[in-house]
Amino acid sequence: MSTSLERLKERLAQVSDLSAAAAVLGWDQQVNMPPGGSDARAHHLATVEALAHSLFIAGETGQLLEEAAAETTGLPYDSDDASLVRATRREYEKLRHVPESLVAERTRVCARAFEAWEQARTESNFAHFQPHLERVVDLTIQYAQALGYEDCPYDALLDRYEPEMKTAQVAEVFEEMKAGLVPLVQVITERGKSVDDTVFHQEYPEQAQWDFGTLVLRDMGFDFKHGRQDRSAHPFTTGFSPRDVRITTRILPDHFQSALFGTIHEGGHALYDQGMRVELDRTPLFDGASYGVHESQSRLWENIVARGRDFWGHYLPRLREFFPRQLAGVDLDTFYRAINKVEPSLIRTEADEVTYNLHIFLRFELEQELLERRLAVADLPQAWNAKMEQYLGVTPPDDAQGVLQDVHWAHGGLGYFPSYALGNLLSVQFYNQAREEIRDLPEQVARGQFGALRGWLRENIHTHGKKFTPAELVQRVTGGEMSAAPFLAYLREKYSEIYGL
Amino acid sequence: MSTSLERLKERLAQVSDLSAAAAVLGWDQQVNMPPGGSDARAHHLATVEALAHSLFIAGETGQLLEEAAAETTGLPYDSDDASLVRATRREYEKLRHVPESLVAERTRVCARAFEAWEQARTESNFAHFQPHLERVVDLTIQYAQALGYEDCPYDALLDRYEPEMKTAQVAEVFEEMKAGLVPLVQVITERGKSVDDTVFHQEYPEQAQWDFGTLVLRDMGFDFKHGRQDRSAHPFTTGFSPRDVRITTRILPDHFQSALFGTIHEGGHALYDQGMRVELDRTPLFDGASYGVHESQSRLWENIVARGRDFWGHYLPRLREFFPRQLAGVDLDTFYRAINKVEPSLIRTEADEVTYNLHIFLRFELEQELLERRLAVADLPQAWNAKMEQYLGVTPPDDAQGVLQDVHWAHGGLGYFPSYALGNLLSVQFYNQAREEIRDLPEQVARGQFGALRGWLRENIHTHGKKFTPAELVQRVTGGEMSAAPFLAYLREKYSEIYGL
Repeated sequence: MSTSLERLKERLAQVSDLSAAAAVLGWDQQVNMPPGGSDARAHHLATVEALAHSLFIAGETGQLLEEAAAETTGLPYDSDDASLVRATRREYEKLRHVPESLVAERTRVCARAFEAWEQARTESNFAHFQPHLERVVDLTIQYAQALGYEDCPYDALLDRYEPEMKTAQVAEVFEEMKAGLVPLVQVITERGKSVDDTVFHQEYPEQAQWDFGTLVLRDMGFDFKHGRQDRSAHPFTTGFSPRDVRITTRILPDHFQSALFGTIHEGGHALYDQGMRVELDRTPLFDGASYGVHESQSRLWENIVARGRDFWGHYLPRLREFFPRQLAGVDLDTFYRAINKVEPSLIRTEADEVTYNLHIFLRFELEQELLERRLAVADLPQAWNAKMEQYLGVTPPDDAQGVLQDVHWAHGGLGYFPSYALGNLLSVQFYNQAREEIRDLPEQVARGQFGALRGWLRENIHTHGKKFTPAELVQRVTGGEMSAAPFLAYLREKYSEIYGL
Repeated sequence: MSTSLERLKERLAQVSDLSAAAAVLGWDQQVNMPPGGSDARAHHLATVEALAHSLFIAGETGQLLEEAAAETTGLPYDSDDASLVRATRREYEKLRHVPESLVAERTRVCARAFEAWEQARTESNFAHFQPHLERVVDLTIQYAQALGYEDCPYDALLDRYEPEMKTAQVAEVFEEMKAGLVPLVQVITERGKSVDDTVFHQEYPEQAQWDFGTLVLRDMGFDFKHGRQDRSAHPFTTGFSPRDVRITTRILPDHFQSALFGTIHEGGHALYDQGMRVELDRTPLFDGASYGVHESQSRLWENIVARGRDFWGHYLPRLREFFPRQLAGVDLDTFYRAINKVEPSLIRTEADEVTYNLHIFLRFELEQELLERRLAVADLPQAWNAKMEQYLGVTPPDDAQGVLQDVHWAHGGLGYFPSYALGNLLSVQFYNQAREEIRDLPEQVARGQFGALRGWLRENIHTHGKKFTPAELVQRVTGGEMSAAPFLAYLREKYSEIYGL
């Protein structure tokens, strides 16, 4: 006679298999699918996701959860089984009020919106995307209402990405960041001419870019036996199990930094997924603690490690072998300063560490306005451009470089953007802790040795999957709360040196 | 108020979406998946296929089918709706006795067997595959019993691939073929030295092979907007909808014919899937009439068209542009004879038109022995080799070139092989009919123009999907029954000329 916990696990394994199937369909959609396949794919995704949802929210799941909770009383808080029941009950209570038909319709509408967004961006034609985005916003509001919230609809969505976090908390952290960042950007911009990045105003052949990125990925510890790398229009990471984790890269011959730092960024995400204990696979615990924690891993590798001077002390000579002509006469200091040039710009994914978060504040505010119907989709491009001027002092010359630049809204991912900024904060908090515990970490990085860092991240963060809320995990790892102060201190120290502030 | 037919269609669309998702997972498994991903993938596939199955065989489907049958009484036999209800009822009556757990277990066991087979074939180590194949055979016997049969377990499996056909009928057709083929092979083998194929004993660069294959695919009318081509260890075609049809190719630098004729073969399959009416998508009618009919399409293009003299009158000059060194001094007659060299050999997929079916007879007989437990899996290699000697006069030097050469058994596809031979018969019957109806077909082929042939196939075969049983379709298209006589006549005429018989 099997226990309720065992039967619960069987059921959750089915849900997880369906979610993994949907992830494969999504990966294929972005990496391989021929253009004519999108309509059919929208149906396939909608059916698979709706079935996963309905299996999860069925009364039987609730029943099994109650019984399994009783069976696991007394187990340690951080045991696999207690964590599974706790995290799943939380999910169940949120999701069980979302009707299957809404899940299916959102999936279908988003799959088509994705296709429309791609075309709209190519043609820089917001009007082509607008009706799709209107449908997405309507359905997302319905989704937030079904999930339920106390203060504002944004809370319901934010909680999908940052469990237990409130919009008001995010707004408070963001205000603290703004107070530190805006004057920093201002003083840097005044002295900005002093950094020379002409080294990047050249063509870098695609194959050599790919090969160097792969070399760094291998050094980071990305496991190609349990993963792969492809090209796609928008880089992303997806994991179907800890043993099948895939990243994608976009290579631009005339924008060398994009593929390099993009690859390292996705590599950081991938190490998280590959580092989760295999025992958590096929359960809801095979996931990041939050999207912000996930982002902390990508940003830690991309910015703190790979935009650091130590890293390039090791890799610049290697990079020179791939691009002897382009890097002739470029010394470490020039290169280091070039990859850390601060300049208010149009595209979030290409922004430097200092101005990056300003792009997030803008999106966070616009999303709230859309969800509370204070802003119509039709007026979004204008509102976008006004906020770009306000926060960054630049105005997009067209919508492709403005409101159409990100895929997230086409996917229905309103509420996701804050996770990027929270990830930036957490990356510094986590790295500072690792540095305290690994005595010679900078020296290791300077030798291109990442085993100790990767091991520390795995042991302290990756292995747990979604066992803990982000707040719990931050407490366990750092002994304190999430805070903007370490991030601001890191930026001030690094950029004071670069810009001689 | 929706009709039962409408509700039935909704339900079948969900089943079809799940099957398409499984097909994407299967394609990815063979084309992209990193080696470590196979365990997880086995679970994903098992869950998706078991859910598709249980949704299909649920009592509600049966209820809706009965009601929809009443609603569609009086519609023309070949109408979409009448055909949908008729074909689906037939499927339902067969499949509803197969338990979901058996479907899940077979899928899981086969996914692992596939992996074991790949390794076993690489190492030519049957022992590594044997325990997996034993499980597959056991589960396939259980599957046949669940499906039900009157005469022999093979009937139940054969019916999955060739609806309404019996093992005894296949045996009868095969006896007729044998009676014609065995003496033909014998007389050709006696004169075999007269065909010179040294042109193929050279290296052909992979990229040029790929590019020429793509050129032919485009001329055939393969629609790359609604399909794509990749490389894989074992070439295959899969369709997720008529608008997303994918083929794979295996390229061997030292075996030029493999990729070329393999690509055209899969292209023939792909035209069938791309040619089905879009209205049939997301129903059980988006499928071939049978696997034999599907195979008739690939063999028609591969053998009758692309191993014909007319075809190479047009393409040999083009091929020479891709391989000027390899084809220097090779004239049309030499090339035509070389691609049609008849020689008993070890590998089914590389066999010529004349000896090909002998490979099928052997598999057909061994499968029946396995299913009736007259042959143990452990004794299979020996039995294989004995039959190779009997039918083809050759003995495999190792199991990789013998019993391990085909993927089908690893996938649980016992009962599939006869479809290849039936496809060979049908390809000639269909082509003869097309030739009667398209006056200047040979002249068109000689100009590399395939529009009329493709249009005829689409209108007479592709467009109908699975509306008709193979027997019905053959009757509609040719006005008669399936027969070995036209195939044998085609071979005798073609090879009498080549071998001067």
